[in-house]
Amino acid sequence: MATKPFLLYTGATPNGHKVSVYLEELKALYPNVEYDVEKIDISTNRQKESWFIDLNPNGRIPVLVDRSRDNFVVFETAAILIYLAHHYDTKKEFFFDPVTEPNDYSELLQWIFFAHGGVGPMQGQSNHFHRAAPEDIPYAKKRYMEETKRLYGVLEIRLSKNRDWLAGPGRGKLSIADLNVAPWVRVHPYAGVESLDEFPNVKAWLERLLERPGFKAGIAVPAPKL
Amino acid sequence: MATKPFLLYTGATPNGHKVSVYLEELKALYPNVEYDVEKIDISTNRQKESWFIDLNPNGRIPVLVDRSRDNFVVFETAAILIYLAHHYDTKKEFFFDPVTEPNDYSELLQWIFFAHGGVGPMQGQSNHFHRAAPEDIPYAKKRYMEETKRLYGVLEIRLSKNRDWLAGPGRGKLSIADLNVAPWVRVHPYAGVESLDEFPNVKAWLERLLERPGFKAGIAVPAPKL
Repeated sequence: MATKPFLLYTGATPNGHKVSVYLEELKALYPNVEYDVEKIDISTNRQKESWFIDLNPNGRIPVLVDRSRDNFVVFETAAILIYLAHHYDTKKEFFFDPVTEPNDYSELLQWIFFAHGGVGPMQGQSNHFHRAAPEDIPYAKKRYMEETKRLYGVLEIRLSKNRDWLAGPGRGKLSIADLNVAPWVRVHPYAGVESLDEFPNVKAWLERLLERPGFKAGIAVPAPKL
Repeated sequence: MATKPFLLYTGATPNGHKVSVYLEELKALYPNVEYDVEKIDISTNRQKESWFIDLNPNGRIPVLVDRSRDNFVVFETAAILIYLAHHYDTKKEFFFDPVTEPNDYSELLQWIFFAHGGVGPMQGQSNHFHRAAPEDIPYAKKRYMEETKRLYGVLEIRLSKNRDWLAGPGRGKLSIADLNVAPWVRVHPYAGVESLDEFPNVKAWLERLLERPGFKAGIAVPAPKL
């Protein structure tokens, strides 16, 4: 069997799932998009070992190695999504062309950056203070849980404007703008956000995504060890 | 006098300065890049008023309105930089072409996302707990100050590899990858990071940027009221 074109270093986290979901969605459309997975156990800090720092100096999963392009390395989830879109989503099924669809492309980037600088880091801090911090700090728990909800409220504003998806004309088109944030929204209870009932359009949007075979396959990566 | 092509809603913050620095650098090369500034006083929460939420549902500065392209609105600092690069940096002085320089373009995005999801949000939290929080919470102060320093250490790793700039071949090329993060690094003392002496390559990189007329002009926007 030939070597698969991609090697994905990842873990079962929302950031890992952003990439594996998109790879699975691409695989369903483009049979050549095949990837190997190497699971990085972040509980043992393997992502801080020097061989990994050589791949990503930030010491974070996921990292994509593109064997078909001279082992080009890509880190940062959203940068990986855009890299895959540019090189492998040749029909622009989940993307917009920067030249022929510049406004849609910009809106896609706006929503990607909104999630990358907001939802991810703030929900991550809520996770930390609810689940991992060695001290119980009610101020920080409340701060980050409320900020996570405020950010979901921004998604709600967008999706309540007769839209199915975050970017694209009309009701929008499912794109990496959606795939980039849905894996975080999916795990809201972990951050102290008990339900999405306050955000009915976000809830319906997430349900549409969760029904997709590609999404289901992506959030099952990496496979649990037997 | 003709209307200037851009209207920038901004404030004197690192995120505001990312955009005004790039606009000033562009202005020096392309005389048609002129912009009006409307200062948003975030201390009065003007950015949460409904007219502003219509521009940016996240209620954050900066926001760019491109009058020359049918008042197209762009929010999220990094999305604004990329928008300006695609449409107005026609000689690709601070950018890389996604088609002809795809690897440099990807590295630029990787460093932009690194800063957008890491340096900005984490340094912002350090600012909050050092300067604004109503409670003194040593755990949170330490957490975010140390994370800010760790992230500067990642920039140091990159710049210590015989590089002048974050992205580009060889020693690199000054690009929006640098302009996107330097305004945050500049204000490190505000976040409890007293000096950059631990990060000599970052310190030298910042000094190179601070000497540039465009950078100097950009961090003076918006002008103080008389």
